[in-house]
Amino acid sequence: MSAARGSLLGIEHLDAAEILKILKFARRMNPDKPRPLLKGKRVVLLFYESSTRTRSSFEIAAKALGAHTVLIQAAGSSIEKGESLLDTGYTVRALGADVIVIRHPNAGAPHVMARHIDVPVINAGDGLHEHPSQALLDAYTILRNKKKFQGLQVAIIGDIFHSRVARSACHLLSRFGVKIILCGPPELVPEMRYQMTAARLKMAKKDAIVMHPGPIIRGLELTDDVADGAQARILEEVRNGVPVRMAILARAVGKIR
Amino acid sequence: MSAARGSLLGIEHLDAAEILKILKFARRMNPDKPRPLLKGKRVVLLFYESSTRTRSSFEIAAKALGAHTVLIQAAGSSIEKGESLLDTGYTVRALGADVIVIRHPNAGAPHVMARHIDVPVINAGDGLHEHPSQALLDAYTILRNKKKFQGLQVAIIGDIFHSRVARSACHLLSRFGVKIILCGPPELVPEMRYQMTAARLKMAKKDAIVMHPGPIIRGLELTDDVADGAQARILEEVRNGVPVRMAILARAVGKIR
Amino acid sequence: MSAARGSLLGIEHLDAAEILKILKFARRMNPDKPRPLLKGKRVVLLFYESSTRTRSSFEIAAKALGAHTVLIQAAGSSIEKGESLLDTGYTVRALGADVIVIRHPNAGAPHVMARHIDVPVINAGDGLHEHPSQALLDAYTILRNKKKFQGLQVAIIGDIFHSRVARSACHLLSRFGVKIILCGPPELVPEMRYQMTAARLKMAKKDAIVMHPGPIIRGLELTDDVADGAQARILEEVRNGVPVRMAILARAVGKIR
Repeated sequence: MSAARGSLLGIEHLDAAEILKILKFARRMNPDKPRPLLKGKRVVLLFYESSTRTRSSFEIAAKALGAHTVLIQAAGSSIEKGESLLDTGYTVRALGADVIVIRHPNAGAPHVMARHIDVPVINAGDGLHEHPSQALLDAYTILRNKKKFQGLQVAIIGDIFHSRVARSACHLLSRFGVKIILCGPPELVPEMRYQMTAARLKMAKKDAIVMHPGPIIRGLELTDDVADGAQARILEEVRNGVPVRMAILARAVGKIR
Repeated sequence: MSAARGSLLGIEHLDAAEILKILKFARRMNPDKPRPLLKGKRVVLLFYESSTRTRSSFEIAAKALGAHTVLIQAAGSSIEKGESLLDTGYTVRALGADVIVIRHPNAGAPHVMARHIDVPVINAGDGLHEHPSQALLDAYTILRNKKKFQGLQVAIIGDIFHSRVARSACHLLSRFGVKIILCGPPELVPEMRYQMTAARLKMAKKDAIVMHPGPIIRGLELTDDVADGAQARILEEVRNGVPVRMAILARAVGKIR
Repeated sequence: MSAARGSLLGIEHLDAAEILKILKFARRMNPDKPRPLLKGKRVVLLFYESSTRTRSSFEIAAKALGAHTVLIQAAGSSIEKGESLLDTGYTVRALGADVIVIRHPNAGAPHVMARHIDVPVINAGDGLHEHPSQALLDAYTILRNKKKFQGLQVAIIGDIFHSRVARSACHLLSRFGVKIILCGPPELVPEMRYQMTAARLKMAKKDAIVMHPGPIIRGLELTDDVADGAQARILEEVRNGVPVRMAILARAVGKIR
């Protein structure tokens, strides 16, 4: 079985047109002006890993669209009792889920679920693999700041190998011909060599922007003057996450064609 | 004090007429067509034990009826600070609960609460004692598959002694003259002797159905071919749980007479 | 930056007129007759400490006013990943919070957040410092039982030094000329000397009332006959918490002027 129409498992298999359709729809979404596109629908948030911003962002997006949300976390659920991923998925579907948003420590877990369950599955981060809603909100943030992708050069800095955010971002940006520079420690440690400081930022273009999926670790990944500086777009990313996820959820139930 | 009208503490004290009234009402409930029978009411889910399907099912049912839900779990609550069961109950009532759904590791806990608090109390599983909403959804599932109870023969297999589900099911099925066969290991171990396999299932009637409250433990209680086979009704039970619990909640606030 | 208008950080800086305005507004709030004063608004409940009644009470109050709530608890959030308080605050604001209700083990944490974030911040208890919503519901309960503050004498008994409830209550009652008697063990232990028993309660005025923020520890802080006696107003306090918090939230979004 292939994934239900409207699933979002990764950026890897999305083409540029599809990505632009989501970003364009997101621009019309306003969390403060609720639109009942998912009125009466049930969005189940299945989190096998802890998360503040991704979970809250999807929850806020779902409610702004008129959906009910049900949160199932690893702690305090039958997940603990050793139920298999698929059986949990079947159960959630049988409970009446219209959309399943899943975060899981294992790469590919959302794909396994989507292959077996005829409900749209949205990958909210799977192990070291993909984090597509983050890549989309990153792209949305870039477009709001730079108008177009053409001619941009993006440096992705840090522990690239272990970052699902980096992986999804690479897939997305490469669709649009963005020049990507990966910059990380040879053996991934020590990261400090690769800390983003004001001095290093000066070497970038004057109008370069600094992005980070959060949570930020001040003094390790980046210094305070960078995190709080005029070029940082870290909180704008959080803000943009809500309309982008509204678009993702609207797409899941067939409201974007 | 006796329990508030509308409470559902166990199947033990429900007669056949009352049970049929609930099942009949459940048949009219459709989670996808919300009915505001509990509009503006507050359903407090008081879970002293972890649960995915029972908790989510009650939550979805309550929301489909227009109620607000408040989840209080043992972890992260004053339950941890050693407040007594009754004081927690009084507090929940004072907070304005219209219905209390309680799961507790100790048999009789919901009954103690119901005797002291004039709010309908619904037992969502109490220790080894009863699990009435599960028994009702089992009965609902049987009726959807078999039309009537008369002439049925039900085998309940496994660790019967420690199963609140089995206990509630026995109470219910015996009301309708169903012939019940209890089948478990003499000293409750080893359960494997009693595993439901395809070979064993063949010994039952051709149109026998296999039910399980979940979560299922594949390879221990039942084999994959049984769990995923044409006779399994395990996910149908999960699905039926929502309308049945909608009926239970509607009954709690006096909408079934 | 000063705290956003509508913030409630403590009683210390509220004058009598402001307090009376909140209490008067609370009298018009009825949790059973929802008023959409916060329709479509997002109330984020940021709990770094466990709580049943305060969290549930704010959640119920917010929903009765038509708001969406998002619960973020220390367990299962990026709080665990070591994100700083302020960065979490910035994130919550970027997610679109209209009001932040925060409980934190450190005194002053809500104040730090309010100084940096232009969203109304409500202190739901900060370390040993303040618990203003509790003080307001205490005052509300006193007024419902005693009509006016003038001429009242209030004894606050127990481990005063470590109680944020006592501190906030002192600030509030002193605004209205209430005579306050603080009564606790010289070195804070052993508390039993200071247990409220029926015999001791007899020494108070006949129409004295007994209040407690809960959870109560029976047999330690007070005896069963006091906790369950005719003079106890402990559950009335819980009940009054909801309209008082409705008023606090309405004030946060500018509905009380």
